[in-house]
Amino acid sequence: MEADKEKTRYFLTMPFPSLSRLHESISTPALLIDAARMDKNLRGMQAAADARHVALRPHIKTHKAPVLARRQRELGARGLTVAKLSEAELFAGEGFDDIFMANQLTQKAKAPMLNKVRQRARLILGIDHPRQVTLLEEMLSSPGPPLEVRIEIDSGFHRCGIEPESDLLVDVARLIRKSPALTLEGVFTHAGQAYGARSPREIKDIAAREAASVTAAAARLKKIGIEIATISVGSTPTAKEVIRHKGVTEVRPGNYIFYDRIQHALGSCRAEQLALYVLATVIAQPGPAQIVCDAGSKALNVETGAHGMHLVKGYGQPMNVKGTLTRLSEEHGIIGLERPEEIAIGSPLLIAPNHACVVANLYDFYHLADGESVQIVPISARGKSR
Amino acid sequence: MEADKEKTRYFLTMPFPSLSRLHESISTPALLIDAARMDKNLRGMQAAADARHVALRPHIKTHKAPVLARRQRELGARGLTVAKLSEAELFAGEGFDDIFMANQLTQKAKAPMLNKVRQRARLILGIDHPRQVTLLEEMLSSPGPPLEVRIEIDSGFHRCGIEPESDLLVDVARLIRKSPALTLEGVFTHAGQAYGARSPREIKDIAAREAASVTAAAARLKKIGIEIATISVGSTPTAKEVIRHKGVTEVRPGNYIFYDRIQHALGSCRAEQLALYVLATVIAQPGPAQIVCDAGSKALNVETGAHGMHLVKGYGQPMNVKGTLTRLSEEHGIIGLERPEEIAIGSPLLIAPNHACVVANLYDFYHLADGESVQIVPISARGKSR
Repeated sequence: MEADKEKTRYFLTMPFPSLSRLHESISTPALLIDAARMDKNLRGMQAAADARHVALRPHIKTHKAPVLARRQRELGARGLTVAKLSEAELFAGEGFDDIFMANQLTQKAKAPMLNKVRQRARLILGIDHPRQVTLLEEMLSSPGPPLEVRIEIDSGFHRCGIEPESDLLVDVARLIRKSPALTLEGVFTHAGQAYGARSPREIKDIAAREAASVTAAAARLKKIGIEIATISVGSTPTAKEVIRHKGVTEVRPGNYIFYDRIQHALGSCRAEQLALYVLATVIAQPGPAQIVCDAGSKALNVETGAHGMHLVKGYGQPMNVKGTLTRLSEEHGIIGLERPEEIAIGSPLLIAPNHACVVANLYDFYHLADGESVQIVPISARGKSR
Repeated sequence: MEADKEKTRYFLTMPFPSLSRLHESISTPALLIDAARMDKNLRGMQAAADARHVALRPHIKTHKAPVLARRQRELGARGLTVAKLSEAELFAGEGFDDIFMANQLTQKAKAPMLNKVRQRARLILGIDHPRQVTLLEEMLSSPGPPLEVRIEIDSGFHRCGIEPESDLLVDVARLIRKSPALTLEGVFTHAGQAYGARSPREIKDIAAREAASVTAAAARLKKIGIEIATISVGSTPTAKEVIRHKGVTEVRPGNYIFYDRIQHALGSCRAEQLALYVLATVIAQPGPAQIVCDAGSKALNVETGAHGMHLVKGYGQPMNVKGTLTRLSEEHGIIGLERPEEIAIGSPLLIAPNHACVVANLYDFYHLADGESVQIVPISARGKSR
């Protein structure tokens, strides 16, 4: 019943009225962006951040495209967030001069890339262990201006980060203060457990804890004379909630540019906000209620939740055919139809992906579709996982 | 108990004695190939095929690298198998002149690419429906030599393919015969259900059915006067079994070049045959029995079985640390250690991936390591899913 309702809702929000026309010229599988929806998503998050006087520093790990990051900057984003140094290198090379890598950098082989990026852009790194301080000191070319760092706080996700009440927080902060190579600019957290939330109420609670953890950490450090400039939080599910909390100065959502089935299931967006789709082609109909398309796990990924969780059913939502993506081989998607129906072999199949971030990372470019006009947008940082 | 045994076995088969040295110069996450193991895998499969006088037409969807396909050709491979036309285009451009695309081609937008590939190489396509015949006729530029096609047979996987005893087989074969644009060159099947097999006995049974389905199809067609030149089968789990069956003329395994945890769990290989690894770096140790590395789902993929099945535990096997990859975020891998232990932040972590084919598709190149000498091998067909 619920599943039926969901399908109906998706059908009502079908984008790309000229899908057949697009399918005549775009070789599949391909990524399509609905330009108007994307722009509305970008404006919506920017407006929410502006209304709370919180800086929006979007995470580019979702789109990995300088063209789209420029649009975010035009609309008011202050700096970018990346997950990896090779992403920072790419975006610094594209003229982005304020980059926060919300992650730890610990491999000495990355020293040349680190020093290169710093020559082009302001780079801020994450830290949650004393050893990382030493490693960064060894990696940084001297003399140079101190590297800005932020301490990662664990707000309940238990991935990385220091608990705000632990002694380690003070130890690491003091170590950074003592280091001539580093300067402490902020604290940050990612409440990834929001991807396992079962209700809007739970999202609210997680957002509250997310904000409380970093503001508490900053308050503790202030007591020992260490002022924290930036208190940074963020995930797409919690973003609009967490910025309502006092003390938060920066928010770092990424997925909101496109949203996806997982975000929709979490209540982060409405179905008509989904802006990214995989365009596929029906290649076979082996039985009356089964069709096969040319988008498999190398085009859709098998994730059914973020952070390895399982949230949604099927490997994507077919938008123009009533059915479920029940199986994925590497290059085949198997769709069980709701009822026996003849589907034209060779016809387009539009699919809303489960997890936009990992799907985009499989492609070299987007087709940004604004009505019938289509712009090719390179996913320049695709595969930049180093 | 079983899991413990498995871990011990993996530890005993640790490749790359100079791992620390490699980690000093290779920025992580990175793909490492043990050159000697790979070569042994390639020779082993070639020898098995040669011994049965069966042609080996390796599937390049696993490695996607012309350099490695050349090695397969040197050792005796006869032609290549691809899954997608864009792979065929890439390999044809690299001088491979005999390519079987074990898949259906139904999108008209691909006509220019189809005709371009045919100018450079022998291209054979799959067919399992009358509509595909018409579509190919419309797509092929005329005049030109007829396009070779093979009929796909369903040997129990129920993905694509025609059942060997169905009337459709004869209908499609006759339709191809009548078409001036096409010529029927073979029948083929992929027994993907082997990836769900629970025992060597079951693999044997699946291989027997795999062989029987295509030989039966060829025999039926012969009765109505249609001679089939090639009877093609293949998957890595069934490969060495299925070639023992009379009538089979060609085998198309792909994964055997590297093998992986899934193949090991299926009994396709021994642990010391695993040739592909992800080299990562420990970035944090948030607790006494938890470390975090820089390889997440964008470096390891979350697949735990092929074809969307679930076969192995964890998202890859750590080789030089005793623990389990329990969670993957996009850029973080979380390892639960067997027992509390201090692991040096910044040190290398070597991981045996679950499914080599989808992992390789995330990277731009391999590091082919032969002792301390390392060669960069481009994964030129990465992302070629069209």
